Amino acid sequence: MKAEDVWQDIERVRNDAPLVHNITNYVVMNNTANALLAVGASPVMAHALDEVEEMVNIASALVVNIGTLSVPWIEAMFRAADAARERGIRIVFDPVGAGATKFRTETSREFLESFRPTVIRGNPSEIMALVKEGVLTKGVDSRHDSEAAVDAAVYLNREYGSVVSISGEVDRIVTDGRIIMIENGDPMMPRVTGLGCTASALTGAFVAVDGSPFEGAAAAMAVMGIAGEMAAGKSGGPGSFQVEFLDALYRIGEDDVRRRLKLAEA
Amino acid sequence: MKAEDVWQDIERVRNDAPLVHNITNYVVMNNTANALLAVGASPVMAHALDEVEEMVNIASALVVNIGTLSVPWIEAMFRAADAARERGIRIVFDPVGAGATKFRTETSREFLESFRPTVIRGNPSEIMALVKEGVLTKGVDSRHDSEAAVDAAVYLNREYGSVVSISGEVDRIVTDGRIIMIENGDPMMPRVTGLGCTASALTGAFVAVDGSPFEGAAAAMAVMGIAGEMAAGKSGGPGSFQVEFLDALYRIGEDDVRRRLKLAEA
Amino acid sequence: MKAEDVWQDIERVRNDAPLVHNITNYVVMNNTANALLAVGASPVMAHALDEVEEMVNIASALVVNIGTLSVPWIEAMFRAADAARERGIRIVFDPVGAGATKFRTETSREFLESFRPTVIRGNPSEIMALVKEGVLTKGVDSRHDSEAAVDAAVYLNREYGSVVSISGEVDRIVTDGRIIMIENGDPMMPRVTGLGCTASALTGAFVAVDGSPFEGAAAAMAVMGIAGEMAAGKSGGPGSFQVEFLDALYRIGEDDVRRRLKLAEA
Repeated sequence: MKAEDVWQDIERVRNDAPLVHNITNYVVMNNTANALLAVGASPVMAHALDEVEEMVNIASALVVNIGTLSVPWIEAMFRAADAARERGIRIVFDPVGAGATKFRTETSREFLESFRPTVIRGNPSEIMALVKEGVLTKGVDSRHDSEAAVDAAVYLNREYGSVVSISGEVDRIVTDGRIIMIENGDPMMPRVTGLGCTASALTGAFVAVDGSPFEGAAAAMAVMGIAGEMAAGKSGGPGSFQVEFLDALYRIGEDDVRRRLKLAEA
Repeated sequence: MKAEDVWQDIERVRNDAPLVHNITNYVVMNNTANALLAVGASPVMAHALDEVEEMVNIASALVVNIGTLSVPWIEAMFRAADAARERGIRIVFDPVGAGATKFRTETSREFLESFRPTVIRGNPSEIMALVKEGVLTKGVDSRHDSEAAVDAAVYLNREYGSVVSISGEVDRIVTDGRIIMIENGDPMMPRVTGLGCTASALTGAFVAVDGSPFEGAAAAMAVMGIAGEMAAGKSGGPGSFQVEFLDALYRIGEDDVRRRLKLAEA
Repeated sequence: MKAEDVWQDIERVRNDAPLVHNITNYVVMNNTANALLAVGASPVMAHALDEVEEMVNIASALVVNIGTLSVPWIEAMFRAADAARERGIRIVFDPVGAGATKFRTETSREFLESFRPTVIRGNPSEIMALVKEGVLTKGVDSRHDSEAAVDAAVYLNREYGSVVSISGEVDRIVTDGRIIMIENGDPMMPRVTGLGCTASALTGAFVAVDGSPFEGAAAAMAVMGIAGEMAAGKSGGPGSFQVEFLDALYRIGEDDVRRRLKLAEA
């Protein structure tokens, strides 16, 4: 995957303005809607059992994020994912906080078993929490987080067919026999709430327009990282960073992608 | 309606700081609260059945917005609107996403039938979705959206007595025999989530202070458009636009209104 | 308490990055999460009955805020507070809107009776609303709000052992026999939604790292006020103020504290 492929995906998002249906957490709804609008996609947030199926039917992708999970929302997530699978649109799953509580870990695993989402996007500890204890032969503690997370991703890909997108200093996007590594980004990004959730929302937009969910997921992470670098150069803290980040998503051009992209495939 | 009338309404909002009770969606709660504060009004968000009536009793206007609708919230909306009608405070209704799902369309129509809100504020497709199929003699598809929406607005006004405020490149505020058109605004505005919801919240503040809900609704749209123009001149994308927009609502002065207002009455 | 004590608390927050579990309102979740991250703490938002206890078990403080209260959330708040008390972590309670509706006033009083929170943080009218009618011998109306609120705070401290932190032009932090007054801050702060809630969230972070909850609560209010002053110098309205405020929380240094702190103890 090269800079021109990332750029082509950005142009597709801007031209097609795919409708991304988000069932996500209260903390980030505003940010992720704004990020989708800034990059050129169309967001919709809807979680009522009475309408999720109908909303899925006009959407180009479904993003499910368990950040402020509760039982009524789980029911909506599962109903929406059922409709998405039936209609054949792509599903991005963000297991926010998996590993922190059993409730999140178990809901996440049940979601994977039930829907085999197109993309699973999370940080290393969340991705590792999705794998049942004892499944991976090497202990998590004995290795770098990023290596252990890749092992977990390979396992999840084999088990569910999902592309696994792991964010970190180096983002790693994993599918059957391929790994893309992206080194863009900025240390300020973890100081802003919900940028991981934004990555998942953008992944929804990009897998809606790219024939390959693997490359779409990678393009989304590349755009996150490049916009983060563009924002960092203009900001004096996490407040101004957020503002500049949205502006960068809106303004990102072919030159920004060509000059900045640090992508390698293993 | 002239620039001085718009300015007078702004001064009234700043002097009276009307308490606007919002039952609105998760995505925009923060933005609309901040927009109300910036323009000089006082926001309160409350949706519990246990307190909506009591909150209505200290409020100067009620704004109901169905952006992330669910059944428990509908009950609160209806109970609050009942209390508002009984107390005689004005009700602004924003049918976000009406037409996208039956759930939203039907809930909206039931709200109109039950409460005949003072103002209905939405975009053309939402306003048209409020009118039952077959009621308007000319088909929606055969004409410009804005014309068809005005037809729908005239119908809704006749049926429910509501002022209808339609946002768009040209905002149109419709009541019995009068239409105000406002050409202020900026193309960046649809790239920011929830500015329509902000328009509804400000409409609540302005109809709370203006004897004429028609002119109050128009003043709110004028303020939105003028603040949008003020923000556009200082921003480099949708992130900075939002920041500048709140600053503009706070700073808007008589001169800004006089120089910028593009308002015509048909 | 001196500038060096405030600065030491800031350094502790930055070094320890205490996990602050927030059960708070929809309007401010994003802001408070960002403020905690900006100052160096780690936020988590979780309200499901299925996980609040487990989340409390990995947190360093619990912040309960009743801003958009509803019955299911009350149950979660009480369950989380039970777990926090059992585990011995500190609880900050923000009675947003107490006095405005019976629902909020009564829920707040029940929370106080049940959990005797480490810190109660609110504005003068909220603090006064927590005291049952007729308990204070001097009528509320006969005195300045701030004096009446201090009387209420002394009463609440005696009754529940809680430190009481009252925000206002002068913040007053009250415990048994001691009152700290802080005169930092800026008139723009009440024009931004949720800065009171942010103060409560930061109070959670600071009482998590300071042995004395009284001094921790005061340090949090000092940081709020100083960051507000730093932001005010760089902003042109409530939109840019919010952005600069987060940047200031991130950048605040020893010099800012030493030069700006206006703290007196009575």
